[in-house]
Amino acid sequence: MSRIAYVNGRYVPHHAAQVHVEDRGYQFADGVYEVIAVADGRLMDEGLHLDRLERSLSEIRLAAPMSRRALGTVLRETVRRNRVRRGIVYLQVSRGVARRDHPFPSQPSRPSVVATARSIARSAPDANPDGVRVITLPDVRWARCDIKSIGLLANVLAKQTAVETGAYEAWQVDDAGAVTEGTSTNAWIVDGNARLVTRPLANEILSGVTRRVVLELARAEAIELEERPFTVAEAKAAPEAFLTSTTSFVLPVVAIDGSKIGTGEPGPVTRRLQSALDLHLAGIRLAEAPNSRN
Amino acid sequence: MSRIAYVNGRYVPHHAAQVHVEDRGYQFADGVYEVIAVADGRLMDEGLHLDRLERSLSEIRLAAPMSRRALGTVLRETVRRNRVRRGIVYLQVSRGVARRDHPFPSQPSRPSVVATARSIARSAPDANPDGVRVITLPDVRWARCDIKSIGLLANVLAKQTAVETGAYEAWQVDDAGAVTEGTSTNAWIVDGNARLVTRPLANEILSGVTRRVVLELARAEAIELEERPFTVAEAKAAPEAFLTSTTSFVLPVVAIDGSKIGTGEPGPVTRRLQSALDLHLAGIRLAEAPNSRN
Repeated sequence: MSRIAYVNGRYVPHHAAQVHVEDRGYQFADGVYEVIAVADGRLMDEGLHLDRLERSLSEIRLAAPMSRRALGTVLRETVRRNRVRRGIVYLQVSRGVARRDHPFPSQPSRPSVVATARSIARSAPDANPDGVRVITLPDVRWARCDIKSIGLLANVLAKQTAVETGAYEAWQVDDAGAVTEGTSTNAWIVDGNARLVTRPLANEILSGVTRRVVLELARAEAIELEERPFTVAEAKAAPEAFLTSTTSFVLPVVAIDGSKIGTGEPGPVTRRLQSALDLHLAGIRLAEAPNSRN
Repeated sequence: MSRIAYVNGRYVPHHAAQVHVEDRGYQFADGVYEVIAVADGRLMDEGLHLDRLERSLSEIRLAAPMSRRALGTVLRETVRRNRVRRGIVYLQVSRGVARRDHPFPSQPSRPSVVATARSIARSAPDANPDGVRVITLPDVRWARCDIKSIGLLANVLAKQTAVETGAYEAWQVDDAGAVTEGTSTNAWIVDGNARLVTRPLANEILSGVTRRVVLELARAEAIELEERPFTVAEAKAAPEAFLTSTTSFVLPVVAIDGSKIGTGEPGPVTRRLQSALDLHLAGIRLAEAPNSRN
């Protein structure tokens, strides 16, 4: 089956999904995006993703291109037309087409909206049952990583370095030696006191939807947790580490820069959170499916 | 006359100049660009711009999409087809189209190449004979501003703030209080010892072609110069300030954050460099025009 993309009001064959060369997304990275997991054909945590999209748009001073309800319809229709049962839907909003000039267009441009969807055969945890390795690199990104912007060149270069060394992800490190986050994932450890640790929200990291859900699940599971920065040295000495994202879910980290974490196998807290997240996602599906609990 | 754009091997009407939504330039800002001034239909300092493009491509590990000679032909043909006598030609190279995933495509994609050109009726110095005002803002960009990447969202937001306060440009300021550069221009002052001062090349600033030319002209004019960082406070107290870029040429700065610079009028060193740059550009034209010196 050929893929279908939503582009500025139309559903078009993927190969014909195009935008103008003077789209500000193409010339300035003047846009933001979301990636939402699809399970059993349904959007996972859709509300949290749309909340974050609205915040990103607001931070770059771009008005929402359509109502939240209409955006949700576009996303679901894109998923439906691509017959995605398990996979992702991608949504990008840019400041539209205008003659190239740095300031916002004086005649406000119509924002460009693009959505694509695709199936994913195996989830990252299923594809990596023994966990993954990460490397660390200096964080060279801009100071507003809380905005989910399409300006991802630094992330691309860091991820490529990771892949070339056989690692799944690069954890980026600030000037103080503390881990900020991965190139497309949030970073977590379990510290020597059995506390779950992840960096607090600020301009240096993205407010991951899975990060937020996992924090809630940890509280529900009565796992002690602390939102604070942690250093690379602390991470390497930690009994457990993992990463989270919409497409990685909870993914155990078993080595950092070649140093084995804990036993070198996914740890018990990580496993508990993986199970809790599975149940959470299954629960959403049950709760959203009409009559399924009757 | 309708505009023509070069897009991946074809010259197409501007309105039909499109790229795929999964062009990595659109989804990751995974690309670089150049803007070259056109005067009398000729490309100014073409060699320096192509040198810089090659460096940018190399820094993001993207192979040149075609030979330097072929690129030059594309640029000149784009200028010719748009009948640009005075204006700019814009060239963008991205890592091409591939299914969205952060690392480089495992099957190397064909780089995307886009070129556009347009006429500019009045140069920035002609449009601003009394000089311009700048504001200062914290520099929130990434740590590799030496790469001329299309990831320009931070620049866009800063330039928009400048425009909204009636300023021409925002000078960005590092954590130490020193000016890095403008959002699309390099920053200069004449200090209390009548020395021309501009920040030295490093990862924090772009190696401006006009910056380089002006440094050479200053040497030829026996103007004392120093490549060193300068603070906002020093700039505000300086007798002269100006900015440079391919489209701004040498443009006097007469106020910073509302503080008048010197007399509030363009200063003598600035004026000398404006004249020298005019002669340089005229000289290139003469030198390149066949038989013009016979």
